[in-house]
Amino acid sequence: MSSETATRRRVVIVGGGFAGLSAAKALAGAPVDVTLVDRTNHHLFQPLLYQVAMAGLSPADIAAPIRKVLRHQDNVSVMLGEVVEVDLPRRVVRARDDRTTHDLPYDHLVLAMGARTSYFGHDDWRAHAIGLKTIDDAIEIRRRVLVAFEAAEREPAGATRDGLLTFAIIGGGPTGVELAGALRELAHFVLRRDFRRIDPDHARVVLIEADDRLLRGMDPASSAAARAQLEELGVEVRLGDMVTGIDAEGVQLGDEHLRARTVLWAAGVEAVPLTRALGVELDRGGRVKVKPDCSLPGHPDVFVLGDAATLAGPDGQPLPGVSPVAMQQGRYVARLIAEHAVPERRAPFRYRDKGAMATVGRRRAVAEMRRVRLKGLLAWLAWLLVHVWYLIDFRNRIAVLLNWTWQYVTYQRGARLITGDRLGGHPRPEARADDAA
Amino acid sequence: MSSETATRRRVVIVGGGFAGLSAAKALAGAPVDVTLVDRTNHHLFQPLLYQVAMAGLSPADIAAPIRKVLRHQDNVSVMLGEVVEVDLPRRVVRARDDRTTHDLPYDHLVLAMGARTSYFGHDDWRAHAIGLKTIDDAIEIRRRVLVAFEAAEREPAGATRDGLLTFAIIGGGPTGVELAGALRELAHFVLRRDFRRIDPDHARVVLIEADDRLLRGMDPASSAAARAQLEELGVEVRLGDMVTGIDAEGVQLGDEHLRARTVLWAAGVEAVPLTRALGVELDRGGRVKVKPDCSLPGHPDVFVLGDAATLAGPDGQPLPGVSPVAMQQGRYVARLIAEHAVPERRAPFRYRDKGAMATVGRRRAVAEMRRVRLKGLLAWLAWLLVHVWYLIDFRNRIAVLLNWTWQYVTYQRGARLITGDRLGGHPRPEARADDAA
Repeated sequence: MSSETATRRRVVIVGGGFAGLSAAKALAGAPVDVTLVDRTNHHLFQPLLYQVAMAGLSPADIAAPIRKVLRHQDNVSVMLGEVVEVDLPRRVVRARDDRTTHDLPYDHLVLAMGARTSYFGHDDWRAHAIGLKTIDDAIEIRRRVLVAFEAAEREPAGATRDGLLTFAIIGGGPTGVELAGALRELAHFVLRRDFRRIDPDHARVVLIEADDRLLRGMDPASSAAARAQLEELGVEVRLGDMVTGIDAEGVQLGDEHLRARTVLWAAGVEAVPLTRALGVELDRGGRVKVKPDCSLPGHPDVFVLGDAATLAGPDGQPLPGVSPVAMQQGRYVARLIAEHAVPERRAPFRYRDKGAMATVGRRRAVAEMRRVRLKGLLAWLAWLLVHVWYLIDFRNRIAVLLNWTWQYVTYQRGARLITGDRLGGHPRPEARADDAA
Repeated sequence: MSSETATRRRVVIVGGGFAGLSAAKALAGAPVDVTLVDRTNHHLFQPLLYQVAMAGLSPADIAAPIRKVLRHQDNVSVMLGEVVEVDLPRRVVRARDDRTTHDLPYDHLVLAMGARTSYFGHDDWRAHAIGLKTIDDAIEIRRRVLVAFEAAEREPAGATRDGLLTFAIIGGGPTGVELAGALRELAHFVLRRDFRRIDPDHARVVLIEADDRLLRGMDPASSAAARAQLEELGVEVRLGDMVTGIDAEGVQLGDEHLRARTVLWAAGVEAVPLTRALGVELDRGGRVKVKPDCSLPGHPDVFVLGDAATLAGPDGQPLPGVSPVAMQQGRYVARLIAEHAVPERRAPFRYRDKGAMATVGRRRAVAEMRRVRLKGLLAWLAWLLVHVWYLIDFRNRIAVLLNWTWQYVTYQRGARLITGDRLGGHPRPEARADDAA
């Protein structure tokens, strides 16, 4: 047995997101030993993360332990750890846990570490404009939004209170659109009757996009439909406005200052820094320019997938940073590895575009599938169906459906918790002694 | 209207736990204006907090926004803030938010701030032995427990790995019993097949109690039944063992050192420090020795309820620190306030003891109701019924029932998330830039 094990090829997968997890699953039954390394213990269903940020879902509803997803797949081990180095010549990945580092030798390497929020060089904006990439981000956004309403309730009428009730969302892609719509719904339907001094329905939600339309990846008709539906909900959509500064008081838009105590950043992501140490060509967002078989130039047994990579589609444009690309790449690369395909014989990766969608709110969405464009109720139903279907874990699928049904019927949100620090500022992990009242 | 408002009596309630919230609700329709102040925005159903710590429920399942619970009660305002001072002569409560302090004048004051974990003067134990009083505590326990299994998986066999797979729980009251049983079930049913190098079912759970029996508040027969059921699950119950030290490596029990990387503290609570500033007599746990009408000696319009107070029951023993006492006191005091009862005419508070219960695991529990003692399946069903019934919010009740049904059928736990810091150590709120992979 040990000699047989020793001859099996070793696959290391870095990252348990859509790309890494689908690669690991597609390697079921293949004659390889897989080690999947991730910094978190869970696969995160990122398309619904904004609903955690807006108090509609609990974190556990959209996250599944990676171990659990892969528990029946005997050729996979899962390791909680952070990859700190990829030694390409020696074919070793070095991962760190809380106490030590581990060397993971590989025959095939799959790098699928995903992306992080990018402030395009303005790192001083990070403290004031929070991005949405992790569960901790979502919980922090939820905390800031709910705390802003609480603070406004204590504040006399005036500019300070207005600033507390103004929410700026920067970036008009799907995340920005979804956050803006959900935040207006939170204010309008959920919080409206809960306060005595303020009317949460007066909360301003300002969606700021530098381009001249929302949802640049979709058809202009969908962009216009999304804008119209957002405006029906009361979102102020500002197009062609360039953010030139962000501080604790709000957002600078050229000559104009928008007073907003809560600023959410949905304007961009970049690959995680690990790609920069690979010594290969990157795009401006730090993404590896991979070959048509998703491999690292010069290293046919190293693959870079999903948001860590950039690859041109049939139209010459880079493939979008969405989960279908990541999942299809994961399965494609798994097949190359399982078949032990020599580089010359590999058919290039081909993305099968199933469309794009974004939700605005109750019965409000836009969707495009091949030549079909939907908006409003039909688009929203399509969005629901697709998102519940792709939720990775059966139990989560039921939990999310029930939560959504409940919310739809009652206009409530079940997860309106302020955790971490309750009164504003930063979490105080050492302050547990005073947790009372 | 404003002159009418000015003549209405003002009630300030400090704390939105069982005592404070039931007082606020019982004041519905009374000719008073109520302000409820709490450091958190949610009422926490503490009896189920251990299930969040053991990854069975999400925080939102057992917490309801205080505003939402009281939204239809027009005579109540809710304020998120921390009470820093009670000025008894001036009849003003001073509360702090993230930026400023607010003076809240009162005609009647209800102090129901609850308790916090007490280490009986050993504050150096706090860093190593985490208590369970807040949602943040529960999430941190969940993180430490799950991270211990992850670290064990990476560790070669030996004393270090054994220490990672040993969990010491200090305190044999209901919380300790429930944590110990749930932790063994987590290891036995949920995690068993998820690891490759370790067998989580080998995890040792050691429940340490200084007294010669568990569940001191219950009948000795229930104590014995709880112990037998815990031992069936594989919990090591150690009675009569005094903890003399706790550090990062484990627990010192006199001459013996128990190597355990995860130590949970369920041994005691004390009133929050605010009681110490009232200038009245306290018990050893900082609880105010209230008069038979729950009022502060010398201040008939100031009441102290729940875990912040101590009051002797009919048998001369202090009433237990449980939610039925808190809720009954809340309703009792609300009636005194609504009726504006003069001190001489007040009938003393009488606790109607409805019994006690503790759950050990699937179909395992002990319960006492008046003269009836139950154990095993019947006690467990009684426990289920009572806990679902008393869950404060209708939506949560459904969510919890569904989660429990799912867990019962699948032997799974839905909330196995490691959040905050993933790799051990303390949460790193500033490290979001690196949240990827």
